[in-house]
Amino acid sequence: MTRFVSFRRPDGTPSFGRQDGETIVELATDATPSLKAALSDGSLSMLADGASFAAADVVLLPVIPDPAKILCVGLNYAEHVKETGREQKAHPAIFVRYADSLVADGQPLVKPRVTERFDYEGELAVVIGKPCHKVVAADAWAYVAGYACFNDGSARDWQRHNIQFTPGKTFPGTGGFGPALVTADAIEDLGALRVQTRLNGELVQDQPIADMIWDIPTVIAYISAFTPLAPGDVIATGTPGGVGDKRTPPLYMKAGDKVEVAIGAIGTLTNRIIDEQ
Amino acid sequence: MTRFVSFRRPDGTPSFGRQDGETIVELATDATPSLKAALSDGSLSMLADGASFAAADVVLLPVIPDPAKILCVGLNYAEHVKETGREQKAHPAIFVRYADSLVADGQPLVKPRVTERFDYEGELAVVIGKPCHKVVAADAWAYVAGYACFNDGSARDWQRHNIQFTPGKTFPGTGGFGPALVTADAIEDLGALRVQTRLNGELVQDQPIADMIWDIPTVIAYISAFTPLAPGDVIATGTPGGVGDKRTPPLYMKAGDKVEVAIGAIGTLTNRIIDEQ
Repeated sequence: MTRFVSFRRPDGTPSFGRQDGETIVELATDATPSLKAALSDGSLSMLADGASFAAADVVLLPVIPDPAKILCVGLNYAEHVKETGREQKAHPAIFVRYADSLVADGQPLVKPRVTERFDYEGELAVVIGKPCHKVVAADAWAYVAGYACFNDGSARDWQRHNIQFTPGKTFPGTGGFGPALVTADAIEDLGALRVQTRLNGELVQDQPIADMIWDIPTVIAYISAFTPLAPGDVIATGTPGGVGDKRTPPLYMKAGDKVEVAIGAIGTLTNRIIDEQ
Repeated sequence: MTRFVSFRRPDGTPSFGRQDGETIVELATDATPSLKAALSDGSLSMLADGASFAAADVVLLPVIPDPAKILCVGLNYAEHVKETGREQKAHPAIFVRYADSLVADGQPLVKPRVTERFDYEGELAVVIGKPCHKVVAADAWAYVAGYACFNDGSARDWQRHNIQFTPGKTFPGTGGFGPALVTADAIEDLGALRVQTRLNGELVQDQPIADMIWDIPTVIAYISAFTPLAPGDVIATGTPGGVGDKRTPPLYMKAGDKVEVAIGAIGTLTNRIIDEQ
């Protein structure tokens, strides 16, 4: 299984490569400087090995540091729909996050100063591999490059200031996206993998991907019906039940906490919480 | 009053310049190839005149063809809140549109094949002129480059498939943005200007900008509290009462219709509706 990562070299240059255990093998070239570029030009499986770095010597970047579009599915697990008290509709709820809200595995997740209701949402992220527009569900897998873990960190008060979620969903530094892109062909039974979120070691979300109300092909077909998708675009596929805001008492993330989103062979995204400076 | 426009030269090259009546004077240079670039590097008022074109010989582009962020304010006029039957909240509703949904003045506005409920929303667009993050309302005017007309064309069924609006708000070719950027200093009494939408000549929306529930500084302060803004970013400030979906009988846009959004000295955005091919 190949794990593609975006990272900063020890000299600070953004790059990307392949993680082999504790070694990161650079794959970036002048012509293909980023993972998004490698998806766009179709070269990802053909790039030659470059320099090697110890994983400890580089700083990971979000899997795709600069997706043009990040579309998030709300209300895609029945347990989460139930805990929110909302009605299940015939179509998914789709909202948007901006790329400047993303942080990588191992980087701090930033609690905005203006909220005390900073909540986790462990999710499977799907990374688009080819341009797609108005695809039918039966063809949708052909447009998937692979998967990563996502933490759709949410300022619950800002999310509910009014009827649209975006204000609570795109504060800088609130979206975890990592650690690596695992190509779709490397995962045999995606539906059996569990999305597991842990806060300070306690398991707070735990459902199999098969529990999604709208599966990945259906989501891609729905989204690509209204907006064209490009290589590197990200779909965060929704969070299972167990969010902190709906617990009694509520459970929010605060400075010093450790939050992890683990999805079987796809990996584990780990972030410490810090207060916004 | 200077009117800045983005356009394609007769040879197809994207460019920008100044519209003087029926003449367009090019201002683009290699170093500053776009209106967004001129806002970013602060050169807009200092660029030398280049080639001149007859307005009829160029094709206008959206005022900013590629804003990084387009944030739309929902429910910002009491009459519109009332006609939607929604509750007025303490904060604005903010949702997102993508740049690939924009069309220029004079270009066709595209009715998606998957909707029969394609509706107009005449709005004032504010174009951001300087990077801003967490500004207070009292300082917000300093970050405004200027204004244009906006038509937040909406597929009403897709907008209400679930609780988030984005699916109905970002179909390709559904957002009119033009004709020109009018700099903020050129408008003396913005609040007195009326947002007037006409469908096939009939006045269907008509309210002064002073009727906004959250005024422009308040909106900029609110949005910049959760996401950084950059030169060329666009805020569509909400639509007055009178949308077609809330009329009896409803009034939707169909192929062959002409829709105009006029905002006094800011100009008139005119688009014909075509069916998606």
